[in-house]
Amino acid sequence: MLYEVENKFRVEDLERIARQLETRGARFGAVCEQVDHYFAHPVRDFARTDEALRIRRSDDRNFVTYKGPRLDQATKTRRELELPLAVGVEWTEQYGELLRSLGFRSVAVVRKRRRHGRFAWQQWSVEATLDEVDALGRFLELEIQVAAASLPQAQAALVALAADLGLERVERRSYLELLLQSR
Amino acid sequence: MLYEVENKFRVEDLERIARQLETRGARFGAVCEQVDHYFAHPVRDFARTDEALRIRRSDDRNFVTYKGPRLDQATKTRRELELPLAVGVEWTEQYGELLRSLGFRSVAVVRKRRRHGRFAWQQWSVEATLDEVDALGRFLELEIQVAAASLPQAQAALVALAADLGLERVERRSYLELLLQSR
Repeated sequence: MLYEVENKFRVEDLERIARQLETRGARFGAVCEQVDHYFAHPVRDFARTDEALRIRRSDDRNFVTYKGPRLDQATKTRRELELPLAVGVEWTEQYGELLRSLGFRSVAVVRKRRRHGRFAWQQWSVEATLDEVDALGRFLELEIQVAAASLPQAQAALVALAADLGLERVERRSYLELLLQSR
Repeated sequence: MLYEVENKFRVEDLERIARQLETRGARFGAVCEQVDHYFAHPVRDFARTDEALRIRRSDDRNFVTYKGPRLDQATKTRRELELPLAVGVEWTEQYGELLRSLGFRSVAVVRKRRRHGRFAWQQWSVEATLDEVDALGRFLELEIQVAAASLPQAQAALVALAADLGLERVERRSYLELLLQSR
């Protein structure tokens, strides 16, 4: 089981932070359009249990993602299970229909343009994600994937990296939480 | 929305019924190994609501299938939503883990060797499925896929076809029901 340790920051200018990370070796890929359909559980209150279930369309690829409760409030560490589904935009709605047949309810759709880059920090490989999210704004996510035994070191490394980059506007809430709170 | 109208029959000798259907134009494909993992819903009693949810591995392909309640006791007509998942035996268990994380519980595994053939009967295209099911025996399923408006005619056609083939041992229970009742 791999865990992701991640922190998210609000940023004003995606191009400026991209150039800043490129000087550290990051190379950003093409912009990808992601549409995330979030679902409520038939009986569990995911807002209370701190879980999430979504169908993600990433360009023409589909995924199902389950996020378990946060284990650590400082870095949003949580168990995540993301599995590929059939490829093709024609399938996205059908997976949603299957979940609705099982009693899950559609609660929100998060749309964004996303770019990924990767660079080294201390002994870690850090994934940087630049997001422009409909109705919410622009964000940078920094993430390290680790086994359970390395969680504390990875968390400390992310805190040090954020300070080194001058990132101050931490956003602990998910895009889903931000969207629901903005309503 | 397409509906499947199907009837299932116990048979003694799969080869004999295969030859009988071949004289009507059926050509049976290669034997496929299918392993169906059935799940119980977190709060709905599927045995009472007459629904089913399964992850099927068919050789190296994976599918998720939701079956809605039977609409007609004579022919087992029901709504069915079967969607492809990622290809590869390495994924099968992961989809099960995702369902268990959501509160679904593993209830049974049905393993069988299956062959498909297709032939014409009256104005219908009929799919014949020959199954050898671990712990349950040998079965023939006859199925016609139709739009809602044609359900009564398709049901009548299947009844006439079974009489014409001399099939008498109708089995209305699913393999899952048979397996659970045999315990």
